[in-house]
Amino acid sequence: MSTLRITDGQVLLPDMRVVDADVLVDREEGGILDVGRDIDADADETLDASGGLVMPGLVNAHCHVAMTLLRGYADDKPLDAWLQEDIWPAEAELTAEDIRAGAELGMLEMIKSGTTAFADMYFEVPTLVDAVDEAGLRARVGHGVVTVVKDDEGAQVDIDESLSVAREYDGAADGRLSTAYMPHSLTTVGEEYLRESVAEAREDGVPVHFHANETTDEVDPIVDERGERPLEYADDLGMLRPQNFLAHCVHVDESEIDLLATRGAAAVHCPASNMKLASGMAPVQRMLDAGVTVGLGTDGAASNNDLDMFDEMRDAAMIGKLAADDASAVAAGTVVEMATRGSANAIGVRSGVVEPGANADLIVLDLDAPHLAPAHDLVSHLAYAARGSDVRHTVCDGQVLMRDREVLTMDEAEVKERARTHARDLVARAEDA
Amino acid sequence: MSTLRITDGQVLLPDMRVVDADVLVDREEGGILDVGRDIDADADETLDASGGLVMPGLVNAHCHVAMTLLRGYADDKPLDAWLQEDIWPAEAELTAEDIRAGAELGMLEMIKSGTTAFADMYFEVPTLVDAVDEAGLRARVGHGVVTVVKDDEGAQVDIDESLSVAREYDGAADGRLSTAYMPHSLTTVGEEYLRESVAEAREDGVPVHFHANETTDEVDPIVDERGERPLEYADDLGMLRPQNFLAHCVHVDESEIDLLATRGAAAVHCPASNMKLASGMAPVQRMLDAGVTVGLGTDGAASNNDLDMFDEMRDAAMIGKLAADDASAVAAGTVVEMATRGSANAIGVRSGVVEPGANADLIVLDLDAPHLAPAHDLVSHLAYAARGSDVRHTVCDGQVLMRDREVLTMDEAEVKERARTHARDLVARAEDA
Repeated sequence: MSTLRITDGQVLLPDMRVVDADVLVDREEGGILDVGRDIDADADETLDASGGLVMPGLVNAHCHVAMTLLRGYADDKPLDAWLQEDIWPAEAELTAEDIRAGAELGMLEMIKSGTTAFADMYFEVPTLVDAVDEAGLRARVGHGVVTVVKDDEGAQVDIDESLSVAREYDGAADGRLSTAYMPHSLTTVGEEYLRESVAEAREDGVPVHFHANETTDEVDPIVDERGERPLEYADDLGMLRPQNFLAHCVHVDESEIDLLATRGAAAVHCPASNMKLASGMAPVQRMLDAGVTVGLGTDGAASNNDLDMFDEMRDAAMIGKLAADDASAVAAGTVVEMATRGSANAIGVRSGVVEPGANADLIVLDLDAPHLAPAHDLVSHLAYAARGSDVRHTVCDGQVLMRDREVLTMDEAEVKERARTHARDLVARAEDA
Repeated sequence: MSTLRITDGQVLLPDMRVVDADVLVDREEGGILDVGRDIDADADETLDASGGLVMPGLVNAHCHVAMTLLRGYADDKPLDAWLQEDIWPAEAELTAEDIRAGAELGMLEMIKSGTTAFADMYFEVPTLVDAVDEAGLRARVGHGVVTVVKDDEGAQVDIDESLSVAREYDGAADGRLSTAYMPHSLTTVGEEYLRESVAEAREDGVPVHFHANETTDEVDPIVDERGERPLEYADDLGMLRPQNFLAHCVHVDESEIDLLATRGAAAVHCPASNMKLASGMAPVQRMLDAGVTVGLGTDGAASNNDLDMFDEMRDAAMIGKLAADDASAVAAGTVVEMATRGSANAIGVRSGVVEPGANADLIVLDLDAPHLAPAHDLVSHLAYAARGSDVRHTVCDGQVLMRDREVLTMDEAEVKERARTHARDLVARAEDA
């Protein structure tokens, strides 16, 4: 066995206690072997965590990582106008090489800000799979399906692509890759396609991931046409099962929260995107109180505008209190749980906790910065004061992806330069079109 | 004349355009002399801004900097319980040395995250004045007055201290220090004290700074007792004049917004604190549309929990859209303006713009980080993606306070260690009391 030992730090345990401990990792299997100060084992590799906190790598449960290429391209617009006037026209020009450049930039940012796993819905999935494999991250990926603007033939091509991607790449990259069937949303995919393809995905044992109840514009048409709430409709279609996870869930009523809890489907909260697009405030504390599994995601960088999950934790705590009109709602420990175990459970990976048997997806946070002094409460700091730039080391699946802020699996300068070039060319093409 | 030249960067101009330019600074007078690439002058000192953006130092228009000692001490509580159960008992134990340790930690964080000026309400102002002088920052300071829990004699002592502090330190530290008379709020200072002392402050030509309409608990008693809105009451007392600035202004109605605009008093928006304490969402876009001068502040680190004004800009844009139910509200350029010229105007310093004649309060932001690529729009990045850790150099009053992230006016390790020690001792005393 080949081992990695993370030494001399404090460790955040699954119950949110912080203890002095080392962490021993199996580099071949990519799992955590032991947590404690007195582990009796020589290690093949060590990582210094002195003055730092060893904690689970953060899990970004809803992203479109290639959209990092469009960071800052169009801001300060509501969802509908933003998609139709800016994002979709630019996306129409995207090549596989653009998507690779954007995905690599996004993953570089993730590794540098302590994210070790993510769920991603986009196009050109084979390209993304290859990029994830090289970057060393863990991801659940899928091809986003939209049928409403297409003829029957075009819609079927999209559906087939999504199902075949979900089948082909599950378990790729030594098991770091998993997949889901990803119809875009309940209003952008027709009922017959949803019904048939969701049944097929279920037969294959593949989860379903979709956008749900992000804006009132997505809710009202379903209520008007069908006389039922969107999640009742989703339930009729068999889309609210354990394993499945729904992005956003901003405009959900009590009956829909109960449905999520009863059926065991997870919600992925995306607070920054919901604020930036003025979509609304998700009832996160109410979902948690009802027993819904809630994860946390950044959404794409174009509506955030970063992929820093520390930012997202802070945003979740902040907006969660406003939504509940209660400063004690969505407390520090709650958002840390949401960004680690909550997200990991939502997307179905055995990460998000530092304990033997879990995936060795870990980060070491440097506690020395002025904004992390004094240390009355480290969990408070994780939620309210820490940021991605405080991450010292990043480990995924037992492999060190970043050591002392140097990313080992990617050439940082090349990735940034390639992204800049592709972004410039993309905008030029979109403006010509 | 002794000069500093900031070379080879891009510069953010007051109209939010970004141009290639150098900036020439008079180190003795502390002012900006020239902005351009072809400045014909040898400089005594240079700062490299290549690959970076020269922009105004951020101005934190409402802070209690010594409270940095209480960062993370008590979270996830509403304002009233948080003050009464945690903050006031801890503050009762504060010594001047604790206040100095906390203020130094906070100023270290400010310098490292690109803030060059701030307004501060607290106690032990002579100690703070001394610490500001050494740190090299610009500040408008005042002694916070609370009379309602005191007998007449105690109240008068507090008032007298506040007025004498406001008189004594205005113009100290080579003009970097200015003062204000700072009654805590309309509900914590009695009417007769407010009326008399505000009149005295006005005679002295000193601004008045106070908390206003932060929570409904501050608004309702005034409406109930007086039959008028709090800012109508403040206006009766002569507190809404140009020069004066009001922290928070969350629960202000249209008539109060009009009063602020008509009288020329400024509002200081504190979005993070308002979210974290679930105080509510200030109608920032409506205030701006009405012509109110709006600045931006972090409030104390205990309700934030950091002093990073980049965080605060992002928070302001995010919550501003939700409050207006409009994704185009409180746009990127608006929050950058708010954190620079808006705040500078609110607290009455000639900073917040890069142009000849303004104070040489400047920062250089490194644009090379992955989270700032690609560069479709730099102003968008300032609002949504940049963070304090991207600041490369910090200059205040023509003096370099931080060069290549090394703070020159403070010993970073000592400041952090002293803060940790004082925080530990303070908590022990508060728990014993």
